[in-house]
Amino acid sequence: MSTNTLLILPGDGIGPEVMAEVRKVINWFGENRGLKFDVSEDLVGGAAYDAHGVPLHDDTMARAQEVDAVLLGAVGGPKYDDLDFSVKPERGLLRLRKEMDLYSNLRPAQCFDALADFSSLKKDIVAGLDIMILRELTSGVYFGEPRGIFEEGNERVGINTQRYTESEIERAARSAFELAMRRGKKVCSMEKANVMESGILWREVTTRVAKDYPEVELSHMYADNGAMQLVRAPKQFDVIFTDNLFGDILSDCAAMLTGSLGMLPSASLGAPMANGRPKALYEPVHGSAPDITGQGKANPIACVLSFAMALRYSFDQGDEATRLEQAIEAVLAKGLRTGDLLGAEGGTPISTSEMGDAIVTAL
Amino acid sequence: MSTNTLLILPGDGIGPEVMAEVRKVINWFGENRGLKFDVSEDLVGGAAYDAHGVPLHDDTMARAQEVDAVLLGAVGGPKYDDLDFSVKPERGLLRLRKEMDLYSNLRPAQCFDALADFSSLKKDIVAGLDIMILRELTSGVYFGEPRGIFEEGNERVGINTQRYTESEIERAARSAFELAMRRGKKVCSMEKANVMESGILWREVTTRVAKDYPEVELSHMYADNGAMQLVRAPKQFDVIFTDNLFGDILSDCAAMLTGSLGMLPSASLGAPMANGRPKALYEPVHGSAPDITGQGKANPIACVLSFAMALRYSFDQGDEATRLEQAIEAVLAKGLRTGDLLGAEGGTPISTSEMGDAIVTAL
Ligand SMILES: CC(C)[C@H](C(=O)O)[C@@H](O)C(=O)O
Ligand SMILES: CC(C)[C@H](C(=O)O)[C@@H](O)C(=O)O
Repeated sequence: MSTNTLLILPGDGIGPEVMAEVRKVINWFGENRGLKFDVSEDLVGGAAYDAHGVPLHDDTMARAQEVDAVLLGAVGGPKYDDLDFSVKPERGLLRLRKEMDLYSNLRPAQCFDALADFSSLKKDIVAGLDIMILRELTSGVYFGEPRGIFEEGNERVGINTQRYTESEIERAARSAFELAMRRGKKVCSMEKANVMESGILWREVTTRVAKDYPEVELSHMYADNGAMQLVRAPKQFDVIFTDNLFGDILSDCAAMLTGSLGMLPSASLGAPMANGRPKALYEPVHGSAPDITGQGKANPIACVLSFAMALRYSFDQGDEATRLEQAIEAVLAKGLRTGDLLGAEGGTPISTSEMGDAIVTAL
Repeated sequence: MSTNTLLILPGDGIGPEVMAEVRKVINWFGENRGLKFDVSEDLVGGAAYDAHGVPLHDDTMARAQEVDAVLLGAVGGPKYDDLDFSVKPERGLLRLRKEMDLYSNLRPAQCFDALADFSSLKKDIVAGLDIMILRELTSGVYFGEPRGIFEEGNERVGINTQRYTESEIERAARSAFELAMRRGKKVCSMEKANVMESGILWREVTTRVAKDYPEVELSHMYADNGAMQLVRAPKQFDVIFTDNLFGDILSDCAAMLTGSLGMLPSASLGAPMANGRPKALYEPVHGSAPDITGQGKANPIACVLSFAMALRYSFDQGDEATRLEQAIEAVLAKGLRTGDLLGAEGGTPISTSEMGDAIVTAL
C-alpha cells in the first residue's frame, strides 16, 4: 500500500480545537479501515507569526509541496489586526494557495435535511440544496500586479489589478466542467462581462471549453444577478464557475443560505503530482471565530467534512468519504448539536469534543 | 417659483412602459400640488444605439448635465448582446454616471410590510428591513486604467484595474456619514482590506472621515462576510458603505432580500450645481426585463419611487416624496399587485397601467 501523507495546519482561533476532533476521525480510519496516514503538523497564520515572525515558514511551505494533502483549520484573529499587510495571517494561506498553484477551489453549499429549518431562508427554498461553487483561486485581483498604495500628486491612490490569462481561465473551466459531468451537468459561469474586459475574456474562454463537454449545459450570468438568484432560487444551480474575487463573495453568500456555516468544507486542488494525486489543500469555510475560541463551542463538522473531501479527491477513497459523511448525517439525525446548530427546533447541546466522539461512534 | 427641469430617459425593455406611469404621477403633482416640471425626453441604451449608433448621443449627454434631475428606466436586452463592448447599452448608463460625476449611489433595501411574505427569507428576518447601501459609483474597477484584452506571448490576457484615490473615497464616505446622520447613525464599511491594498486605503480614509461624525458608529467588515451577514441577519445594518464593484453585488443581494425587486428605486448624486441642487440621476434597481416587455406585466413602482427620491433629493420636496410613498403603501395595502408581487398570499392582479392609475387615485 502506498503511504498517505497529510500535513495538518491547525492555525488560529478555533482551528486547533476542531482539528483535534479530525485527529480522532483520522485515527479511526487507520485502526478500522486500514487507511494509514503519515501525519505531520505545523504552524500557519498568526500562530506561525508568533513563532517565526512570518505567517508561513519556508520549511512549512516546502513540506506542503511534498505531501498528498494539507488540512488547514483557520487563520486570523483580532490580535493580528494591526500587523503589516505582508505578514498578516491571511498571507500564509494565500502563499499556500499561490505556491502550490491550487487553481481550483471547490466549495459545496449543501443543506443538510436535519438543519433545513436553521437557514434564514424559507425551508422550501433551501431544503435539498446541493450546489458546488468552483472558484478560481490563484489569480485575478488577489495576485495581479501592479498593486499597492502609491503617492500621486498630493494624495495617495490604492491600486489592485484584476488579471486573467486565457490559460488560467481555461484550466479552471475544465475543472468546473469535469465536476459538472459527475453531478447535474450544468455550469453557470458568473462575471461582469458587461463592465469588465476580463469578464469578456472569461466568458469567451469558458464558452470555448464548453465545446469539449457537449453534455454539459453552460449558461452565463452577471455576478450581481448571480447574487440575487442565489438568494431568490438557489436550487436552479448545479455548478457555479467564477473568479477569485466574485467566488469569495458568492461562495460565502451561498454558504450562508444553508444556515450552517459550521458544516461546510472546501477543497483547493492543483495539477497532478508525480504520484498522480493533485496538489491539494482542504479547509472549512468558516473562519477562526475568535469570539468562541477555547470554549468547547466550535463545530468540528466542517473540518471533518474537509477531511472527507481529502479522502475523496486526494486518496481515491470515495466510499470511505461517503461513510464519513453518512456518519455525520446520523449524528445530526439523532439531534446532537453544537451551539451554532441549536435553533428553534431544539436538539441536544454537545461540545466540540463530544461531537468528535459522536462521529467516531457513528462510524 | 424656480423651474424644475427633468430629463426622462426611458431606455430599453420595460423602461418605456414603467416611465409612462411615472408621467401620470408627474402630471398629478403639477395639477394638484403646484409642482411644475419642465420635462424633456430622450434616448439611452439600445434605443439610442438603434437611432444613432451609440448608446448615448452627445446632445443627450449635454442635456443631462443641465437638468436638475435625470430619470432613467432601464438599459440592455438580448438584441444588443453581440454588440462591441464600446457601444453596448450599458456604456450609455456608465457614461452618464461618469461624466455627471455621480459618485454617490443610494440604494435603499426596504421591505414593505404588505410584501414581507414575498421574500425567500423568513418573515421575521426581513419584516421591517430598512437599510441603505451607499455605493461609490464613478471609480474603482469600473473605470480604472489600464483595461482591455491584450496579447501576451502566445495568449491573451484580460485586465481591469481597481483604483481609488483618497479624495474619491473621502467624498463618498462623507455622503455615507451624512446619510447615517439622518437615519440610524451607523455606517458599516465593506472591503477586502485583508487581500487588497485598495481596501486598506478605503478603510483608512473612512476611519478618518468618521472623526468628523462622532455621533455615527463606524464598523468595518470584509465584503465576503458582508454578503453572509446580509443573508443571515440584514437588520443589523443601517448604512452600508462600499465601493463600485462590491456595491454592485452587495446591493443586488440586499435588494433580493426584500423579495420585491420591482419596488426598489435608486439615486445617484454628484456635486452641487450652480443652483445648489446636486447633479442627479434616478433609476429603478430592476433591469430591462426583456422577457415581459410589452405585455403590461411590469411593475412601475420602483420607477415611481425613483421619482419620489428625485422629489426628496433634487427638488427639496421631502413631504411630497413621503406623500407619494404613502400612496404606494396604500395601494399595496388594498391588495393590488402586478404579476411580480403575486405570491402565495394572493392579491388582486393588475396591469402596469392599472398600477399607475391606482397610485394616482391614492394620491
Ligand atoms: C481569509 C481570506 C484571505 C480568504 C479569501 O479572501 O480568499 C477567505 O475569505 C476565503 O474565502 O477563503
Ligand atoms: C447595467 C450595469 C452596467 C449596472 C452596473 O454594473 O453598475 C447595473 O448592474 C447596476 O447595478 O446599476
